[in-house]
Amino acid sequence: MYGYGDIMLFSGSASRDLAGEIAEYLSLPLIDYDLIEFPNQNLLPRLHGSVRGQDVYLVQSLNTPVHRNIMELLLMIDTLNRDSAGRITAVVPYMAYARSDKKDQPRVPIGARLLADMIEVAGADRYMTIDLHAGQIQGFFSIPGDVLTAFHLLSDYFIGKDLENAVVSTVDLGFAKKGRNFAAKLGTPLAFVEKRRAQDDPRARATSVIGDVEGCNVILVDDEVLTGGSVVEAVEILKQHGALDISLSFAHPLLVPPAVENLRNLPLKEIVMTNTVDIPEEKRLGNMTILSVAPLLGEVIRRAHEGRSVGELFNE
Amino acid sequence: MYGYGDIMLFSGSASRDLAGEIAEYLSLPLIDYDLIEFPNQNLLPRLHGSVRGQDVYLVQSLNTPVHRNIMELLLMIDTLNRDSAGRITAVVPYMAYARSDKKDQPRVPIGARLLADMIEVAGADRYMTIDLHAGQIQGFFSIPGDVLTAFHLLSDYFIGKDLENAVVSTVDLGFAKKGRNFAAKLGTPLAFVEKRRAQDDPRARATSVIGDVEGCNVILVDDEVLTGGSVVEAVEILKQHGALDISLSFAHPLLVPPAVENLRNLPLKEIVMTNTVDIPEEKRLGNMTILSVAPLLGEVIRRAHEGRSVGELFNE
Amino acid sequence: MYGYGDIMLFSGSASRDLAGEIAEYLSLPLIDYDLIEFPNQNLLPRLHGSVRGQDVYLVQSLNTPVHRNIMELLLMIDTLNRDSAGRITAVVPYMAYARSDKKDQPRVPIGARLLADMIEVAGADRYMTIDLHAGQIQGFFSIPGDVLTAFHLLSDYFIGKDLENAVVSTVDLGFAKKGRNFAAKLGTPLAFVEKRRAQDDPRARATSVIGDVEGCNVILVDDEVLTGGSVVEAVEILKQHGALDISLSFAHPLLVPPAVENLRNLPLKEIVMTNTVDIPEEKRLGNMTILSVAPLLGEVIRRAHEGRSVGELFNE
Amino acid sequence: MYGYGDIMLFSGSASRDLAGEIAEYLSLPLIDYDLIEFPNQNLLPRLHGSVRGQDVYLVQSLNTPVHRNIMELLLMIDTLNRDSAGRITAVVPYMAYARSDKKDQPRVPIGARLLADMIEVAGADRYMTIDLHAGQIQGFFSIPGDVLTAFHLLSDYFIGKDLENAVVSTVDLGFAKKGRNFAAKLGTPLAFVEKRRAQDDPRARATSVIGDVEGCNVILVDDEVLTGGSVVEAVEILKQHGALDISLSFAHPLLVPPAVENLRNLPLKEIVMTNTVDIPEEKRLGNMTILSVAPLLGEVIRRAHEGRSVGELFNE
Amino acid sequence: MYGYGDIMLFSGSASRDLAGEIAEYLSLPLIDYDLIEFPNQNLLPRLHGSVRGQDVYLVQSLNTPVHRNIMELLLMIDTLNRDSAGRITAVVPYMAYARSDKKDQPRVPIGARLLADMIEVAGADRYMTIDLHAGQIQGFFSIPGDVLTAFHLLSDYFIGKDLENAVVSTVDLGFAKKGRNFAAKLGTPLAFVEKRRAQDDPRARATSVIGDVEGCNVILVDDEVLTGGSVVEAVEILKQHGALDISLSFAHPLLVPPAVENLRNLPLKEIVMTNTVDIPEEKRLGNMTILSVAPLLGEVIRRAHEGRSVGELFNE
Amino acid sequence: MYGYGDIMLFSGSASRDLAGEIAEYLSLPLIDYDLIEFPNQNLLPRLHGSVRGQDVYLVQSLNTPVHRNIMELLLMIDTLNRDSAGRITAVVPYMAYARSDKKDQPRVPIGARLLADMIEVAGADRYMTIDLHAGQIQGFFSIPGDVLTAFHLLSDYFIGKDLENAVVSTVDLGFAKKGRNFAAKLGTPLAFVEKRRAQDDPRARATSVIGDVEGCNVILVDDEVLTGGSVVEAVEILKQHGALDISLSFAHPLLVPPAVENLRNLPLKEIVMTNTVDIPEEKRLGNMTILSVAPLLGEVIRRAHEGRSVGELFNE
Repeated sequence: MYGYGDIMLFSGSASRDLAGEIAEYLSLPLIDYDLIEFPNQNLLPRLHGSVRGQDVYLVQSLNTPVHRNIMELLLMIDTLNRDSAGRITAVVPYMAYARSDKKDQPRVPIGARLLADMIEVAGADRYMTIDLHAGQIQGFFSIPGDVLTAFHLLSDYFIGKDLENAVVSTVDLGFAKKGRNFAAKLGTPLAFVEKRRAQDDPRARATSVIGDVEGCNVILVDDEVLTGGSVVEAVEILKQHGALDISLSFAHPLLVPPAVENLRNLPLKEIVMTNTVDIPEEKRLGNMTILSVAPLLGEVIRRAHEGRSVGELFNE
Repeated sequence: MYGYGDIMLFSGSASRDLAGEIAEYLSLPLIDYDLIEFPNQNLLPRLHGSVRGQDVYLVQSLNTPVHRNIMELLLMIDTLNRDSAGRITAVVPYMAYARSDKKDQPRVPIGARLLADMIEVAGADRYMTIDLHAGQIQGFFSIPGDVLTAFHLLSDYFIGKDLENAVVSTVDLGFAKKGRNFAAKLGTPLAFVEKRRAQDDPRARATSVIGDVEGCNVILVDDEVLTGGSVVEAVEILKQHGALDISLSFAHPLLVPPAVENLRNLPLKEIVMTNTVDIPEEKRLGNMTILSVAPLLGEVIRRAHEGRSVGELFNE
Repeated sequence: MYGYGDIMLFSGSASRDLAGEIAEYLSLPLIDYDLIEFPNQNLLPRLHGSVRGQDVYLVQSLNTPVHRNIMELLLMIDTLNRDSAGRITAVVPYMAYARSDKKDQPRVPIGARLLADMIEVAGADRYMTIDLHAGQIQGFFSIPGDVLTAFHLLSDYFIGKDLENAVVSTVDLGFAKKGRNFAAKLGTPLAFVEKRRAQDDPRARATSVIGDVEGCNVILVDDEVLTGGSVVEAVEILKQHGALDISLSFAHPLLVPPAVENLRNLPLKEIVMTNTVDIPEEKRLGNMTILSVAPLLGEVIRRAHEGRSVGELFNE
Repeated sequence: MYGYGDIMLFSGSASRDLAGEIAEYLSLPLIDYDLIEFPNQNLLPRLHGSVRGQDVYLVQSLNTPVHRNIMELLLMIDTLNRDSAGRITAVVPYMAYARSDKKDQPRVPIGARLLADMIEVAGADRYMTIDLHAGQIQGFFSIPGDVLTAFHLLSDYFIGKDLENAVVSTVDLGFAKKGRNFAAKLGTPLAFVEKRRAQDDPRARATSVIGDVEGCNVILVDDEVLTGGSVVEAVEILKQHGALDISLSFAHPLLVPPAVENLRNLPLKEIVMTNTVDIPEEKRLGNMTILSVAPLLGEVIRRAHEGRSVGELFNE
Repeated sequence: MYGYGDIMLFSGSASRDLAGEIAEYLSLPLIDYDLIEFPNQNLLPRLHGSVRGQDVYLVQSLNTPVHRNIMELLLMIDTLNRDSAGRITAVVPYMAYARSDKKDQPRVPIGARLLADMIEVAGADRYMTIDLHAGQIQGFFSIPGDVLTAFHLLSDYFIGKDLENAVVSTVDLGFAKKGRNFAAKLGTPLAFVEKRRAQDDPRARATSVIGDVEGCNVILVDDEVLTGGSVVEAVEILKQHGALDISLSFAHPLLVPPAVENLRNLPLKEIVMTNTVDIPEEKRLGNMTILSVAPLLGEVIRRAHEGRSVGELFNE
Repeated sequence: MYGYGDIMLFSGSASRDLAGEIAEYLSLPLIDYDLIEFPNQNLLPRLHGSVRGQDVYLVQSLNTPVHRNIMELLLMIDTLNRDSAGRITAVVPYMAYARSDKKDQPRVPIGARLLADMIEVAGADRYMTIDLHAGQIQGFFSIPGDVLTAFHLLSDYFIGKDLENAVVSTVDLGFAKKGRNFAAKLGTPLAFVEKRRAQDDPRARATSVIGDVEGCNVILVDDEVLTGGSVVEAVEILKQHGALDISLSFAHPLLVPPAVENLRNLPLKEIVMTNTVDIPEEKRLGNMTILSVAPLLGEVIRRAHEGRSVGELFNE
């Protein structure tokens, strides 16, 4: 009724766990494909069956190995396109190169725009993603997309907790406005960790806290945790400024080494995150709470397929 | 020697003053064109002479009347292109629709990307602009551009002043990172005015200060002043928090009513701004200091024409 | 059944009356949206609900304020596209910049091609319009469109009248071929008003009549009336050449001042026009007959939605 | 000095004579290339030497054999592009498909836009042409072009003659406005031949004259002569209306059979035309005057190469 | 159910016979259109009825008159597009310019890429073709396509024959890999005719056989027969090397003169080919077997329309 | 004089050795840039100085790590473009994904076209490469390029040797035509190694020799050596058919494990190859002769910069 055949849900090699959960949510089979790697590392995806006319969703997060994952995504889009898929949606829960979103120094690229162009030139009709580092990246695409947020998942989780004496703090100033929204949703005050390069020694960096955290329980928020280095700095300075319990909340668990070691050694009450990137067992700590984005993605895929509102999902 | 003829500098109807200063800086004539407006408001630009093969720069800020100014810009680009200009650079000191840079609510456009696409489809080869609301907007363009900043002009001005007991504060959290850079350049502490919508009444808004301004002289920074409403709120709350002298610094003097009245009534020590938008005499107040961006734009135009580094200008 | 969801009919701010009539014809609700105007005149349309997968028609004539209306149209197309509309049709009963369709002097733009490119780059899938100034403008679009004509409405109206002793005359030579078709349909002779710039004084203009109108009732035809200046000249010279009753017929009632005054003062038997542009009460004169294009547009929208022939409507 | 190497002038197989004259005007060699035709009619152009970085002009009119000539033009553009020409200008004195410029009936193509797209997709940077059937066709191209006119050549020729008692008449109403300009330049009155399909029998056609030619010497004007059928009709009806001497003036001498027979049999005082299409000896009649466009094209090529004004040529 | 209306099957003027067979296979009417040719050879296709929203297939092989056939194809695509067809598939059983697929000498075009670009710019959504000269040509298209093969038809035919003592030989080395596949399918040995330009005289050409054909029955394979010149050479040298019976097998029967004379005079046991190009009665010889590709094309059209797998057809 | 500033020669991280040799050939400095790799593997190239208006050549072969090398190439092109380089040429001596040049099975991508599109969308103006796996890949690009060949280097080397009793053999049938050209240049006979999948067991493969190698010295030719597996098979079967000395000649030394072990263990008289891919010391064997392509690339870069013929280099 809406111009395309049935939903066909494919999992790229980077998102087997998450795609499996989405398939379960939708009560649909997860469709497999061959991915041949030649000795020169060139990849060749090969579908097991036809996708002609169907409404195809390919789930592939762009975490490490990042360039192989990008190329697999693009080759699969080309494959689906040349096999005459009815509509191709690239479901990229974690987008790569999102921090390369502007020229904050001269003579550098804008990697996120390049990636958007590559996804479009490969032939994707639409994309879905979660919590882009900067909302403006949506404007790098000319194809329509669903840019979702795990904000509600994460903030609702904390609203269910005791928030007495709580203050929300961001890990750095780049997350200032989103931190404000988080604090507003929870009804708490707000603080920031500021990092500033020293004038005389660009390699030294002064860290300070702006706002009041003395005697407060802090919910430290950010969009992603990579090595955890910034979190370590933030927890240290917050403690110095008299913070009591500190919990950590973020969307994208990249957790590249030594992230797990860093997090293990910190006095964090709780680490709350989503599964936009598959998290192998060995990276899971006792104080981690993982909130699944699979119901969110599954529901949005269903609504996108049926031509129904996605905004409604969020009372928008 | 670099593939194009001579510089030809045109002024659109929105930037006569600034373009005149640039022409003076470059010791070049400012070239005029007819702009016929028919009774149905349709515009017809008409050049006085040929631009064939030349290196054309068209200066046009996109302040009010904004849509007429946009259309004049686009029609001129088409005119220059169809008259076989060698290279066309749209010099847009103030870009319109820059705050429509992301979908921060569902079912709205991304106006800044649309405008970038319109400038490209009209046939511009390059663009120049100053202090985009968000650096990511550069990624909305696929043509190359020089995105300049008045940051050095403004911060250097304050460095020449007595900065004892000074603190930099931003008007809101959207300017947090740029405010940090300003404070770092001046070597002062940092504070923020936070505006938060009330949970129970979305029309009410609570304003607070994050960081310490008690007994300090505040340099209040932002990228533009439109009606001045945010500045009024910020000055009020800063005074409540014990701020002493307050100076205001920003790049783009849009100053639409009642901005001048607002600024006149505020206890501001000094208002420091640039002339990216032409400022008529009647909008000038005694405590205003206007730093001209004409030497900056003129120098960049010269270097762009000669194929020399622009970054060098900023020791980059 | 034809690849898109239901018809959703939106009215832009320029065409509330006409869009309302179309909605009535189709027995469909007319869908509203917010159009926020910021103090810097930047516009922000915001939909009230989702258009995902639907077959959307946006009615917006491009009369004055022309540039605001153009930008509203383009921003809405971007909004609909980014909200994943199934198909977007720009219904522009009166197209702007249609007289800027060629370079009849050097160093001018081709505004109509620029506008077509802007509509395409904004993301429209199709367009509909009525009586383009030149049929070639259809070739400025690469997207398909329905270029309709009010010719049948207007000529059928006169065929129902007494045509004895009638002659069709055009207001100028630009309408010569369409005037011929009008005369052929009515079975009357044909004449032209010719305007010619004087050789020695380009500001003077000689007006004459080619063909015989002596003792005839004249139906004076054109595509639009803007200020009515040409009509005044034409009526005067026709009267000088012995015309008896003169009626006026045209498609687009732009009627910018002093059009109504001009028309009121002319000895016109009847003024027959359509409502491609909304006509406020105060512009309506006693001798005006307004033929609605709403049934035409409504029927074409229905057929476009259902995948049925539009040409059949005209026995073509 | 203007970004490209030297002029290289190529002649396509359709325009050997004209290109030769242009080369002579410019004192440049005319460059040859191989054009292999395989038994399946597929063409293979092959350059004799490199065009890398040069400013290439390819002269090729699109008269019969029209599709072979089009394909030769496109293949040569591709060849020049893949051989890294610095700039490629398609010089097409007579453009094909120019009468397929709008959908004057449903379910037909717009061939002229298609041809423009083909020339662009093949890789031309610019084009030059003479007296397009409709000026709007320039808007079908997004690349810049020089659309020249032989109007001055032709009208200046007649101005040098005795114009007493002269009237300009067009062959049909499609040439009405250009006929008016011709008459205005000569300072003569104006008339039109009108052709109208009969209401009851669409195959029958009534011809009449609008305007007064009784006792006048008529200069009959049009843009091209194909078979001469319209000219035959026009001369006949003009004679019936009392015309004395009739001269014929047009730009494009397509002259496909039986044009020469038609023209030979008509009582024409003089036939004045240009050589946008090569005219073999056997098509030349005693009363023909052929005005060469080679100096015009040569001069425009020189100015385009040197980045100088073309409009100046026409005191514009 | 799959986004488009009904199948509408059109036959271009080059493929009346084949399109008729496809229509019969699909039990669908073959839809006709007018193709007007003006005296200047410009073509004007005109549809008899609307194609709005329908799933249109246009069958047109690109044999001689090749450029007229190409232009008819492109004009029809433009016509269908501007008449708002739901989806347009260019069914081109024999693609022109396929041997112009690379620059095997400097300063030549890549005609096949140019043709692909022309088909795309005209507005085709998809294409179908059979046995491209080089598989890489599929990569010249960015739109999806079904590149089919008559390989199974031809090889299955021979499998049904007595293959004792058979060897497969290619006409030249360009067909080496496809010849290998043919031999592998039949389970026979393989040989090649090699043609080599002489070092000292580039016009002389030495022909030899690589592999063993002495005392064998040879199946000589190629993709197309144009004039038959290569076949004549091949048969001669194979006979010299002791070949017994020789049969000939190929997909595309271009058969331009003197192909039929050449084939008639050769001692060929059987000539097996398809009808991708219509074969008039006078080109048919007694030893020819023509295998129709109509069921193949018909079945693929049906599956493309219904969104079902095409690969399944070939057990893939 | 040719529209761009000076040559600026950059080396990507994959081609330090080759780029160094080219710089030496051209007596130009090799320009360095930073390539930052973040913990999430995202890359950030950063130039040391401006490239504004210059004629930039970036040398980067696409061997392993292939996807990182591809992304570095694309990011650098974006960087150069956004830094306003005058012209950007991607010099890719070895192109990746070149064997993914057609759909030789259903439901696979055409990786080489995808890669070409990615290079174009990133903003390259031109490309250079050596011995593409299939010449048709040049047609995947719409930007112009110089597709060079090491054929002359390699064949000239053998011509200088004693060729008595020599025969050229290809490693498989995919190289048949290029092998023929090699043999023709050397004036030797030709043979092929044929590999054929068994009908009954698709994993088994029969290898044979077509043509006569008994008692001959064989020059075994191919375009690249990856793991050397095919060479091992070919040498074995050639020896079985009585070949005497065997030499190996190819362009691209990918040499991924166990290539070096394979080659070391083979009874090869000589291994002749180029350095399109940097060859570390530990991969060099005693019987290897490495012919540098640096003079070829250097000379072509010089000619491309100066707008001189490249074909002349090869007497073409």
